[in-house]
Amino acid sequence: MSDKIKKCKTWNVPCSVMAENSVNPIRNLVDSMTITPNPEKDMIALSIGDPTIFGNLPYCEVAENAVIEAIKGRKSNGYTASVGYESARLAVADYTSTPTSVVTAKDVILTSGCSSALDLCISCLANPGQNMLMPLPGFSIYKTLAESLGIEVRNYKLLPEKSWEADLNHIEELIDENTAGIIVNNPSNPCGSVYSKEHLEAILEICEKNKLPVIADEIYEHFVFCGSKYYSLASLTTTVPILSCSGLTKRFLVPGWRMGWIVIHDLNDIFVNVRRGLVKLSQRILGPNTLVQQAIPDILKNTSSEFFEDTLVHMKNNAEIFYSRFREIIGLTPIMPQGAMYMMVGIDIETFPVFKCDIQFVEALVKEQSVFCLPASCFQYPNYFRVVLTIPETKVAEACDRIEEFCKKYYVARNGMNNGNNGVNGHH
Amino acid sequence: MSDKIKKCKTWNVPCSVMAENSVNPIRNLVDSMTITPNPEKDMIALSIGDPTIFGNLPYCEVAENAVIEAIKGRKSNGYTASVGYESARLAVADYTSTPTSVVTAKDVILTSGCSSALDLCISCLANPGQNMLMPLPGFSIYKTLAESLGIEVRNYKLLPEKSWEADLNHIEELIDENTAGIIVNNPSNPCGSVYSKEHLEAILEICEKNKLPVIADEIYEHFVFCGSKYYSLASLTTTVPILSCSGLTKRFLVPGWRMGWIVIHDLNDIFVNVRRGLVKLSQRILGPNTLVQQAIPDILKNTSSEFFEDTLVHMKNNAEIFYSRFREIIGLTPIMPQGAMYMMVGIDIETFPVFKCDIQFVEALVKEQSVFCLPASCFQYPNYFRVVLTIPETKVAEACDRIEEFCKKYYVARNGMNNGNNGVNGHH
Ligand SMILES: Cc1ncc(COP(=O)(O)O)c(C=O)c1O
Ligand SMILES: Cc1ncc(COP(=O)(O)O)c(C=O)c1O
Repeated sequence: MSDKIKKCKTWNVPCSVMAENSVNPIRNLVDSMTITPNPEKDMIALSIGDPTIFGNLPYCEVAENAVIEAIKGRKSNGYTASVGYESARLAVADYTSTPTSVVTAKDVILTSGCSSALDLCISCLANPGQNMLMPLPGFSIYKTLAESLGIEVRNYKLLPEKSWEADLNHIEELIDENTAGIIVNNPSNPCGSVYSKEHLEAILEICEKNKLPVIADEIYEHFVFCGSKYYSLASLTTTVPILSCSGLTKRFLVPGWRMGWIVIHDLNDIFVNVRRGLVKLSQRILGPNTLVQQAIPDILKNTSSEFFEDTLVHMKNNAEIFYSRFREIIGLTPIMPQGAMYMMVGIDIETFPVFKCDIQFVEALVKEQSVFCLPASCFQYPNYFRVVLTIPETKVAEACDRIEEFCKKYYVARNGMNNGNNGVNGHH
Repeated sequence: MSDKIKKCKTWNVPCSVMAENSVNPIRNLVDSMTITPNPEKDMIALSIGDPTIFGNLPYCEVAENAVIEAIKGRKSNGYTASVGYESARLAVADYTSTPTSVVTAKDVILTSGCSSALDLCISCLANPGQNMLMPLPGFSIYKTLAESLGIEVRNYKLLPEKSWEADLNHIEELIDENTAGIIVNNPSNPCGSVYSKEHLEAILEICEKNKLPVIADEIYEHFVFCGSKYYSLASLTTTVPILSCSGLTKRFLVPGWRMGWIVIHDLNDIFVNVRRGLVKLSQRILGPNTLVQQAIPDILKNTSSEFFEDTLVHMKNNAEIFYSRFREIIGLTPIMPQGAMYMMVGIDIETFPVFKCDIQFVEALVKEQSVFCLPASCFQYPNYFRVVLTIPETKVAEACDRIEEFCKKYYVARNGMNNGNNGVNGHH
């Protein structure tokens, strides 16, 4: 080694293990797919979990005006505390509190979207080498975040035959002394499931028994169809400490605004260290956009219930059309959602023998019919695809027609006979 | 261990090492100080690095209107690519390119403030156990970010007697085979220094010789007083790969908007892996607020030079008043800044024998005179304090009067005689 040059003689700059391991499974898989639509048919994208993209859903006028007011007020261009404005945190606390789970401003940390809320919670609860329980199928960012930090992902099964309830036995089997927490996502992406009070209580019971803290991904809170009821996990326990992650993203239809939050539910001071840790972590990037922060009290208090209902009516309507149409397509098994923005559809892949898996099925569907569904392999859940419910109604029917044509063409009954035209079969 | 309960029987939820180590030295120190102003004097806060707080600097009308337009346009509520809108990245590329350092949209990643840009760059360049070189005194978040990730901080000295140039020999001494990069902050917080072309070239030469990639914290780019000239590091090299971090925060006076960016300068494809890693890391939180993203082209192209000049004239004027006044106060040694928003002032602490250090000096100054300067111990640089240049001019004179009174009261000449009134001494 020379006196002066202690490092190396040629440039060689690797990237860190953390960056290398920040793998987004959706991006990875979609980027590796052959997505070449049929030039004769316009593309219908049923894959994109962005409710604004088709422009058919209502705009949140209250939110828009509130941010314009914030700009004109000229009081919110400066730095805030890294956890956010007190007024905004108070508004979130009021919005989140229920009669059985009251929180205040000090329990709220504002973040750059729900993703950043999840990032802080996962980073704060677990050390490298520990493990965390996560739903399968589940939102892919959990895995991205955990694995990049060296935290082991342990997936607990959701049961399609029970409207995607969690497999409670499986959860218990997975827990060991290195389990730092469990993520519960309700309502669910990609499933669209909304858990009953009883099911949530059963999950909480396991957590209480095993002293397992919860990260509740409740970004779709209140985003449930008429007939279902949403319960926050925190409203159902007095003993289990819960970090609830949510934000404006979904319900207010402004994902790009990047406004999320963590609400710390901790009646028994179990999260004293975690609370301190979350505040410390929030100082790494100094909170989310202040114009939106300033607008939060107005947005949360004054958005009309009609605005929410318009969105939900539209989505439920789409869900019903998709569901009744897919039920009639042999080889497919749709599972009716009760909320969020998605429906999962099972592919009886053996009855489509030309395709090895959901990815090939989806690729061919794009190529022939210009309909793009998200293969659930993105969620490590092969042989399902996910459709979004936020698209214009006219496109729903068209998409169903095309998927039907496609399935009829490739369906081969298990006995070897192509009975693609003979209606209902045993799978439904 | 019982069959069912595999974890533990009582709640015990620690926070992670990463959270524990996300220490913000400024917050820690300021929170531990006794800050009780004199009730008979109104407080003058010279400590806060937020240019909007006094309301005396111009507002960036172009920026405000551009964001209002973005809201009204209703095209930017949705998700973007995690690196940001192409149009915004292109505008940043145009804004950043120089004749000798041309970049394009693909070289730009938008982030939630410059802090997040730094977070991504540090996380991407170094693994736990490696080290990174950082200026001393320097912006405290570097240390916060690095140490929370288990990256060792190696501080290289800046030399007050050379207008805070970096100690080049010290840099070379610190480099070893585990050095993953160097952070260069120009113009500097807390020093207000602006490096000459020659000095920047000397730093680059060391980097080239040792094959050391650079994180250039250039958040104060172009924020230099009349008479000084700003050079971006990237404009001065064709061989050293540079990640330049900047944003709207300082120059456009909108820190709360949280709009930062990384510009990848890499003429020789040395950063192929790092570039990929940065994109992966950006997917963790899905980019900054889209309304501001949408407004970026307008903001960067159409903000008038008068707007920038107004701010700079104001700050230079304040710097000159502070400097000439502090020069006349024995026991203090101001160092004239050429840019950014700060001035460092040395305290000849032995000549204030009642105070052990800058912290005690500052505490007493608050208690008696209600003037709050930031003790440079926050930057691990004892026996200096930092003042901000962004306050209203009227307050500058008042603050100087009070500091002068305070210093006269406590000054004791080295020979033991109190000559607090006899003007200039050898230290200036
Ligand atoms: C279950 C779930 N959690 C979190 C997020 C991320 O939300 P945000 O866009 O606020 O980061 C999403 C977005 O699709 C989601 O589906
Ligand atoms: C040198 C330096 N870098 C980065 C930052 C952070 O900037 P932002 O507010 O855009 O995160 C600051 C803020 O004071 C700074 O002084």
